[in-house]
Amino acid sequence: MTDYRRLRVALLGAGAVGSQVAALLRRHADELADRAGARLELVGIAVRDIDAPREADLPRELLTTDAESLIVGSDIVIELMGGIEPARTYLLQAINSGADIVTANKALLATHGPEIFDAADQVGAEVYYEAAAAGAIPIIRPLRDSLAGDRVQRIMGIVNGTTNYILDRMDTEGAEFADVLADAQRLGYAEADPTADVEGYDAAQKAAILASLAFHTTVPLDAVHREGITGIDKAMMDAARHAGYVIKLLAVCERLSEASGSESISVRVYPALIDRAHPLASVHGANNAVFVQAEAAGNLMFYGAGAGGVQTASAVLGDVVSAARRHIAGGVGVGESTLADLPIVAIGRVITRYQITLEVDDQPGVLATVAGILSDGRVSIATLEQTVTGEDAETARLVIGTHKALEQDLSETVDRLAASGVVERVVSVLRVEGD
Amino acid sequence: MTDYRRLRVALLGAGAVGSQVAALLRRHADELADRAGARLELVGIAVRDIDAPREADLPRELLTTDAESLIVGSDIVIELMGGIEPARTYLLQAINSGADIVTANKALLATHGPEIFDAADQVGAEVYYEAAAAGAIPIIRPLRDSLAGDRVQRIMGIVNGTTNYILDRMDTEGAEFADVLADAQRLGYAEADPTADVEGYDAAQKAAILASLAFHTTVPLDAVHREGITGIDKAMMDAARHAGYVIKLLAVCERLSEASGSESISVRVYPALIDRAHPLASVHGANNAVFVQAEAAGNLMFYGAGAGGVQTASAVLGDVVSAARRHIAGGVGVGESTLADLPIVAIGRVITRYQITLEVDDQPGVLATVAGILSDGRVSIATLEQTVTGEDAETARLVIGTHKALEQDLSETVDRLAASGVVERVVSVLRVEGD
Repeated sequence: MTDYRRLRVALLGAGAVGSQVAALLRRHADELADRAGARLELVGIAVRDIDAPREADLPRELLTTDAESLIVGSDIVIELMGGIEPARTYLLQAINSGADIVTANKALLATHGPEIFDAADQVGAEVYYEAAAAGAIPIIRPLRDSLAGDRVQRIMGIVNGTTNYILDRMDTEGAEFADVLADAQRLGYAEADPTADVEGYDAAQKAAILASLAFHTTVPLDAVHREGITGIDKAMMDAARHAGYVIKLLAVCERLSEASGSESISVRVYPALIDRAHPLASVHGANNAVFVQAEAAGNLMFYGAGAGGVQTASAVLGDVVSAARRHIAGGVGVGESTLADLPIVAIGRVITRYQITLEVDDQPGVLATVAGILSDGRVSIATLEQTVTGEDAETARLVIGTHKALEQDLSETVDRLAASGVVERVVSVLRVEGD
Repeated sequence: MTDYRRLRVALLGAGAVGSQVAALLRRHADELADRAGARLELVGIAVRDIDAPREADLPRELLTTDAESLIVGSDIVIELMGGIEPARTYLLQAINSGADIVTANKALLATHGPEIFDAADQVGAEVYYEAAAAGAIPIIRPLRDSLAGDRVQRIMGIVNGTTNYILDRMDTEGAEFADVLADAQRLGYAEADPTADVEGYDAAQKAAILASLAFHTTVPLDAVHREGITGIDKAMMDAARHAGYVIKLLAVCERLSEASGSESISVRVYPALIDRAHPLASVHGANNAVFVQAEAAGNLMFYGAGAGGVQTASAVLGDVVSAARRHIAGGVGVGESTLADLPIVAIGRVITRYQITLEVDDQPGVLATVAGILSDGRVSIATLEQTVTGEDAETARLVIGTHKALEQDLSETVDRLAASGVVERVVSVLRVEGD
């Protein structure tokens, strides 16, 4: 066996991902040494409670509650605790003590990314975070390295497994949101408090990370427009299917170019209609996928498991090997590029297509009134379908597909429709993505 | 504008990809400088004939027929000439003169990869070849870096756009191979001499590159089992569709584990049946996709354009930026890992499922004879469908789906079936992949 240099690896956190990382580091020690060019010696695992029950059988002598002592003298620090504090403090401490860091902490990077990256730049350390953006799917290196000579125009990502699982079952089984959510909670696909997933907070964090990288611009979390899927019901799913669409929770990161040549970006998370022939429409169950449109490369898609302890551990270990290679090879890291520093526009400036579903009085002249309000609001009609609703023959349902329109125009137009007297109810307004 | 260090970039070849690379290097010079941390100065373009007609408008003063003088003193040499010589000589010269190299030359890497990588290792240079494996699709970095802490079990790739275009049109339009090929040649999707594509040579080169990387083992091109798609006809396509499959030309790179714990690999290219629900089945037209199964990460798929001048140029430029960053950062490169050095098994040792289509005499006892030969040959029947053929009521068609069997057993069994007296014709034998 080759006599490799030893690198001291500290692990913070021993939950679902952390315990798998610890297990794989030990099980594949020889193979990892060959690939990294260094033996990766797990010197300790910082936990809150040494006696807590754990998924994997970890050597008790490695467990410690003293994270700060563990960090000092480590070459690589893996942070899998989650949350903002104490993870932020520990990572800054690790950077300042000369370690490279590996983290899967999307909440931390989406809120304190610049602080972490700046600290690393100061000392020439590197921050690896492949597991923070789309679980096991390699997307950070493709965006940072493979597409470094290209210009990303748009990213559309299914980046939350829980919501994709729920929407996929609603679509394929015709089930209601609440029933599928309850089932997902029972099966472990959703947390007891599902807010972070179903309200789009998790997806918004990932969108901020992906957009920052793709557009070389710091994207603060509060610049990400966010809507969840709790308003999606069976009727909306059925209507989408009828029109040849499926509803997916999408993280959209888009470069907007003005006629003047000036550029800006939009970052948004919402449930949207997507054509059934689009590659993202075939992403089923709890899987994730990131669809990237680049100026030269054209359309690319990256697909895989978005979560799961052992899957995410794969991404973490890939980062650990990269960090080890860099330690051995020397040189300074790539660092985070925010040089483009593009302005981030509000949701009102976004241009996309829409599908508006209305319940209207079934009387002569109603259609003319609705069409007039749309036209006055600079919203152009592409398709229109009118059906009489089952319960009440005096009410008709209008499904209007629009051409591309400005979100602000659309939103004001919908308000005017609601107040027009001929519209009984605005059933739904959904964006159509993926043209 | 930041006052960046200048790096001298030499380009060898100005064909479809090369002229796009030259154009993008100049068009996005400022953005590339920001991302690379260095100005990428295109110092010359080596061509065979300065006056040849070109796709892009290249500055005449950059063109030269003297590649060797151009290489000397360059920091990064981009080789897009294709073919073995003089590309091999120029790349070795570039490495020995201290340059990092970027190449899209799959033929060269599949045949002389070890020589090139060894030469680079000797001097601490790096070889970048993202564009050599699957066009614009980022697959090299995911395999080498993102999955460095994981164990790849199997890769199944649609890595040749021409054959996927032909098979996809045969599938969706019910057309014959020769008609679609002629059309593909007219549209520029296939070469006048289509041998490299339709006989699987191009896919075999890419399979050798992907398998070398995934299994840390040198895979010589002649160790890749190769079959093309010229034998696929409309009837086979129809039968596949009827059974819920589609036929794709697959590059399969697989890790085989013996009960003893010893491991080997198989690398093979052939047309295979794949279930219509498999993500690879939805890869249409000239697109490529690489499906990766890893021990921890699970199933991943990478999808995009497999060829095209500007798309491939994106991958080349990503490599150029990586090379530039390394030049600036210092340190030695990752190098190619062949430490695992796994044995490569012959096609006869492969275990997979098969679909056998036979024309047999429609007489009592025939089925028992066929079943007996299969059973004697250690080939177990999973599904069986018998239909009387239209033309001749005395002949029946048997479509047999097998359980997993050893290729050598299967092949000997098919020979015995053909010689049995009850089988009039072996219509087709196709492997079934993607379980």
